[in-house]
Amino acid sequence: MRLFSTARLVAGLFVASVVLTGAMADDKMKIDPVKIVALSEVGVFGQFNTYKIDPGYYKMTMAERDKAVNEVEALVKKHSDSIRVDAYLTRGFESESDFLFRINGYDPSAVQEFLTDFKATSIGRYSNITFAINGITKGLNHTTQQKAPELLDALKATKYSEKPPRYAFVLPITKNAAWWNKTENEKLALMKDHTIPTLPFLVNVNRKLYHSTGIDDADWITYFETNDLKAFNDLNIKLFSVSENLHNVRYGKPTIMGQIMPVADVFKALSK
Amino acid sequence: MRLFSTARLVAGLFVASVVLTGAMADDKMKIDPVKIVALSEVGVFGQFNTYKIDPGYYKMTMAERDKAVNEVEALVKKHSDSIRVDAYLTRGFESESDFLFRINGYDPSAVQEFLTDFKATSIGRYSNITFAINGITKGLNHTTQQKAPELLDALKATKYSEKPPRYAFVLPITKNAAWWNKTENEKLALMKDHTIPTLPFLVNVNRKLYHSTGIDDADWITYFETNDLKAFNDLNIKLFSVSENLHNVRYGKPTIMGQIMPVADVFKALSK
Amino acid sequence: MRLFSTARLVAGLFVASVVLTGAMADDKMKIDPVKIVALSEVGVFGQFNTYKIDPGYYKMTMAERDKAVNEVEALVKKHSDSIRVDAYLTRGFESESDFLFRINGYDPSAVQEFLTDFKATSIGRYSNITFAINGITKGLNHTTQQKAPELLDALKATKYSEKPPRYAFVLPITKNAAWWNKTENEKLALMKDHTIPTLPFLVNVNRKLYHSTGIDDADWITYFETNDLKAFNDLNIKLFSVSENLHNVRYGKPTIMGQIMPVADVFKALSK
Amino acid sequence: MRLFSTARLVAGLFVASVVLTGAMADDKMKIDPVKIVALSEVGVFGQFNTYKIDPGYYKMTMAERDKAVNEVEALVKKHSDSIRVDAYLTRGFESESDFLFRINGYDPSAVQEFLTDFKATSIGRYSNITFAINGITKGLNHTTQQKAPELLDALKATKYSEKPPRYAFVLPITKNAAWWNKTENEKLALMKDHTIPTLPFLVNVNRKLYHSTGIDDADWITYFETNDLKAFNDLNIKLFSVSENLHNVRYGKPTIMGQIMPVADVFKALSK
Amino acid sequence: MRLFSTARLVAGLFVASVVLTGAMADDKMKIDPVKIVALSEVGVFGQFNTYKIDPGYYKMTMAERDKAVNEVEALVKKHSDSIRVDAYLTRGFESESDFLFRINGYDPSAVQEFLTDFKATSIGRYSNITFAINGITKGLNHTTQQKAPELLDALKATKYSEKPPRYAFVLPITKNAAWWNKTENEKLALMKDHTIPTLPFLVNVNRKLYHSTGIDDADWITYFETNDLKAFNDLNIKLFSVSENLHNVRYGKPTIMGQIMPVADVFKALSK
Repeated sequence: MRLFSTARLVAGLFVASVVLTGAMADDKMKIDPVKIVALSEVGVFGQFNTYKIDPGYYKMTMAERDKAVNEVEALVKKHSDSIRVDAYLTRGFESESDFLFRINGYDPSAVQEFLTDFKATSIGRYSNITFAINGITKGLNHTTQQKAPELLDALKATKYSEKPPRYAFVLPITKNAAWWNKTENEKLALMKDHTIPTLPFLVNVNRKLYHSTGIDDADWITYFETNDLKAFNDLNIKLFSVSENLHNVRYGKPTIMGQIMPVADVFKALSK
Repeated sequence: MRLFSTARLVAGLFVASVVLTGAMADDKMKIDPVKIVALSEVGVFGQFNTYKIDPGYYKMTMAERDKAVNEVEALVKKHSDSIRVDAYLTRGFESESDFLFRINGYDPSAVQEFLTDFKATSIGRYSNITFAINGITKGLNHTTQQKAPELLDALKATKYSEKPPRYAFVLPITKNAAWWNKTENEKLALMKDHTIPTLPFLVNVNRKLYHSTGIDDADWITYFETNDLKAFNDLNIKLFSVSENLHNVRYGKPTIMGQIMPVADVFKALSK
Repeated sequence: MRLFSTARLVAGLFVASVVLTGAMADDKMKIDPVKIVALSEVGVFGQFNTYKIDPGYYKMTMAERDKAVNEVEALVKKHSDSIRVDAYLTRGFESESDFLFRINGYDPSAVQEFLTDFKATSIGRYSNITFAINGITKGLNHTTQQKAPELLDALKATKYSEKPPRYAFVLPITKNAAWWNKTENEKLALMKDHTIPTLPFLVNVNRKLYHSTGIDDADWITYFETNDLKAFNDLNIKLFSVSENLHNVRYGKPTIMGQIMPVADVFKALSK
Repeated sequence: MRLFSTARLVAGLFVASVVLTGAMADDKMKIDPVKIVALSEVGVFGQFNTYKIDPGYYKMTMAERDKAVNEVEALVKKHSDSIRVDAYLTRGFESESDFLFRINGYDPSAVQEFLTDFKATSIGRYSNITFAINGITKGLNHTTQQKAPELLDALKATKYSEKPPRYAFVLPITKNAAWWNKTENEKLALMKDHTIPTLPFLVNVNRKLYHSTGIDDADWITYFETNDLKAFNDLNIKLFSVSENLHNVRYGKPTIMGQIMPVADVFKALSK
Repeated sequence: MRLFSTARLVAGLFVASVVLTGAMADDKMKIDPVKIVALSEVGVFGQFNTYKIDPGYYKMTMAERDKAVNEVEALVKKHSDSIRVDAYLTRGFESESDFLFRINGYDPSAVQEFLTDFKATSIGRYSNITFAINGITKGLNHTTQQKAPELLDALKATKYSEKPPRYAFVLPITKNAAWWNKTENEKLALMKDHTIPTLPFLVNVNRKLYHSTGIDDADWITYFETNDLKAFNDLNIKLFSVSENLHNVRYGKPTIMGQIMPVADVFKALSK
């Protein structure tokens, strides 16, 4: 008995090659800053990097540091066609960093080009990268319109409705092999189990998801924005209290907390 | 069969949004230093940071170092409306730090502002942050007046009654997924199991609790004050010897021991 | 009863010594750059090293840095008879490195000689090695022409057919003792299980394998090249979703992502 | 049904408060150097710290370094009323340290005061602390005269009888939750199981024990002195080969080996 | 019922004290360089240390560096009565080191004295120790002439018979508590299981063993020399594929690969 048909395999390849060509194939793609921030598209590459500022930076004069802040602001503007830069102040909240960059773009090399250019700025020269993780946006694997129409409707009906959020949290998540070996239906059921109890918190907490399996040392990067730390703590307790959590081998580690601020304000705060 | 009712979910959101608005919602709140130290309120944000002083600090003259101590003292005073600063000398007890800050406030950004300003002081410039963890105060999840009236009464009846404590211990604690998947009643029973044997030690040991699940890489930060290390060791042995401990995946690591001292005294000791 | 026959053991030694002499036995062997890049030969030693550039490098003038880039380019050419150097820009994607070297050669000491010489260049002096792992190419242990002819045919029939790949990923993999204790047939079955679902992705993703058991702290180094991160993510999800993954105790950690570039271009990008 | 009696709990507190007052309660206590080294008393605080000397130290002249050694010797003498300092040369044996301090005293703050003063000496300024762990002496929890009279007699009858030991080993030990959840009788049986096989080695190996549960990230610090590394290895193999070892989650890590030397000799060796 | 006889215990002590006196007891012992390299004696102390060279070294002139190499060579000669120094070039193969020392001697303090003197040389001042592990040689615990005569005969009959080996590998190994709790016969059977499949490789691979349980954070240090990395990989696969491997909790980590070279050549290569 033949274990599998070579013909079918090769046929499968063609199908795959059609399916898999997409946004990533182009060398450099223009972004729409409004659309990319919504993360509703497939094929967005997201890079999360934290940095710590070397004490040498503070040997520069205040005037030089002001100029250094402007230099970063100008660089962000220069790259704004191909990437979107979000910045967060982490100093005081985190031991391993002073600030966090979240860079979104369709083309990883455009993201890399900005970050390489940033390292060549005055602040960049003194900014040591301390953590880096990346992932991509994709359609949800299991919670599709076809398989879970009600859950999707509920998710769509629940919008963040508080004042603009001031704090962001980044939590990488990894599941164990037993989880990955479950059937699609089993995974869907677990997904529902973990999503439903979180719905009441989505008015207080924004949430975005990046997929990282194989691309980096996590399966997902979850990104949250909120003003309400108690709601965020309660939301996480819900996520911890479902059986899916028995399969989490990484949840956070690092958990990164930052204050959401315009890029220039982050570097002004760090240039005091 | 519908797995859940969208209507109910949306209704739930409104309830949640009412429940979850609270202290955190305001931009910046004044603290009452007497009330905040008791940690009896919900909605206090607590940041625990350790720092190690760079050898470069000791190239400053003694006069400059004296001035540097005064600078920190003045900064603490300046921020005293919005945060409370507690400081601890860890040099000699810990390899990873020379001192510990515990900062309490209603507004995380006020805590961050102090810590960012501290980094801009003479001592701050030479203080490298080596560990940071934060959490919030909340009502107890399980041991409520309704569910465990006697235990709560006993806890209230047991007050620290020794000389002012000289040593503080910080121990982050994390439980495994099996614990989080237990029912409320099971958790309450385990809570009682661990609380009752510790009651005899509360005359010798002060204890405060912060909640961190999702906010940082621990579930709780436990904070202790004592003069009596044997009592504290015996108290911990009690906590280790109940079945709840089978679910602890982190207990300490780091365990931070510091001497409780006025802020200025900590920096004077480190400026010798 | 004798547990084993000494005579047979000694006889076995002679057989082994014949089998095991090979490419490695010679002191220094010339490489064919076209053949070695295909990694189709047995007996290629592969060294993967990441480096981070010390800030001191940027105190050199631009002219000096241009010269430094040329120096590395010349060194690569000088060693091109005995080794092949591939370079990758990792700055911005990784926290632990700015660039990655993959060095292939028949003679480990020739690889080491290049890397020692590199450390003596202007850039090398400022390049701190942050990760190093090595392995060798061998015939596949289980998926042989005899045991799995169809799978091998399918693998051969599936060629990368997209534009030249721009991104490389390095993922060390380690299996647990239970896997190693399986019979040859069990291992072959698991190999088939993990290989078949990946076939459709091989038009989008190039893959090479090095063996490291005992030579370094991994069992294998898997090396991938692709333009399509979604395909790569999907490919890895397939590898995660087979039972073989229950035996993986390391998959990535670190996962290294780099942009594939000519050696000079990598160092030009880092010399900005 | 009431789960427990509040009255009994409060009564229990009084008993505890009587039992737990002791040596630790006083602010600063004089030590008897002969008694404290025997570690036969309850209530001794022991701090084990390792340090690595910064290369900057060797830029001082030999005369300055000689003076620096004398400065440490004088400091030890100055503090000898309240603490006992033991020093060990670890350079060459350990990667993480050049020397080890073991400081015993009744008052943790007296220990801290010495270590803070040490950091202000010429050598201390160049000595970076790399590991710190502390614990207290207590009566044995399980192997008491009442419960195990013969074992205690055997322990007392077995005295170190070789030449003064030249090497010291520090091994922190931590047990898992299953061990802590055993009954007193089960723990006593395991204690006997591990103690009896070690008795033959006590003529060659000195052993002291500190309790750290809750105080630091270990349950015990075991401290050994010996001349005979083979005996010490055999002793540890005995400790590994009893069922109690199934509950050890930390045994060493770090294991610190140092040469026992007078304080001045340690710093002379490091000042070459 | 008495659990054990005190008299027998004390008697046991005398026996032990006779057995355990040996090479280690003397203060300083002369070595025979030919005998010690064979590691066939009991009571040899072996220290494995890796070092990384600080970039500051390369600010010295070439003439100064040549002199620095000679200084190390002279130091090795000076200590050659009491210790044997083997050196290995690891630069390029390892991220954590540039070279490895293996120092064998009967007296640990003689080994330490050399290493302390080395730190005082010009190269030593710039050599930062990055890993250190030590152990002792002992008779095999289980595979004795009495218990496994045929295996021992086969081991003796199998000699390394290739060209002088050029590469060395150091792999620390640790077994779990379940292994240590096996009976002597069970351990012997597992030893046979792992030894027999490795015999065919011993013509290509030299192997030495040090015992470290309790002395350092491993149970054994295995040291290999070979020219044939494929044979070495195959040998390790054999060791991974026996049930004994189910009890290995550490195998390598770090695995250190170095090129075997005369001491002066190692430092010449690093002084380029």
